[in-house]
Amino acid sequence: MASIFTRIINGEIPCYKIAEDDKNFAFLDINPLVKGHTLVIPKKEVDYIFDLDDEDLAALHLFSKKVAEAIKDVIPCKRIGTCVLGMEVPHAHIHLVPLNSEGDLNFKNPKLKLDNDEMKQIADKIASAFK
Amino acid sequence: MASIFTRIINGEIPCYKIAEDDKNFAFLDINPLVKGHTLVIPKKEVDYIFDLDDEDLAALHLFSKKVAEAIKDVIPCKRIGTCVLGMEVPHAHIHLVPLNSEGDLNFKNPKLKLDNDEMKQIADKIASAFK
Repeated sequence: MASIFTRIINGEIPCYKIAEDDKNFAFLDINPLVKGHTLVIPKKEVDYIFDLDDEDLAALHLFSKKVAEAIKDVIPCKRIGTCVLGMEVPHAHIHLVPLNSEGDLNFKNPKLKLDNDEMKQIADKIASAFK
Repeated sequence: MASIFTRIINGEIPCYKIAEDDKNFAFLDINPLVKGHTLVIPKKEVDYIFDLDDEDLAALHLFSKKVAEAIKDVIPCKRIGTCVLGMEVPHAHIHLVPLNSEGDLNFKNPKLKLDNDEMKQIADKIASAFK
């Protein structure tokens, strides 16, 4: 069965989309640690990120860099932190998290509750800054 | 002044070295969250990882993949998680952390106290598995 992320890529499940290229896709984390918390995934459905071949792994990280630059352009933060845990959804995903302090990237922190309008507004702003 | 990590690369400060190539260097985190917790750094002294150019960023991640595979070969774990925060040492570094659960990658967790012999043994084991 397709992963929930593959179904998002295919448009079967809605998301707050930010950008995509031929190999990769970026959208807002639905349970954000902070505003602008984004997930970047390969379109190829691979559970463990290090099972991607070198070409796809490099492409994923270069795409993530462009997404991180867009986030940093529009979300007030010192830098974009990244994290790959990957034990919940069996489809590799990189968390991009705008940081003002190291403690901002802690999955034990309470998640933000943002309404649909605000999530859409954040995604649109980041999408507009994506080059 | 050279960063503490550049001084480690240059051999001016000792470390539990795992591997290096022309662009990158890997060594054990001196304050490990779990056994096998490793740092991977570019030899080029760049503070923010996304300031690396595309070639160096891709090389760093492909080198990290090889280090992660070596760690996973010798440290009992489900997978290797990764994290880049980078607000303490101004030299980009990727944390590679053997995970048995998502909670293992939490910088608020207490750090392990391992003696010199054990650190050396862990580093040597990972280095031997590095291909």
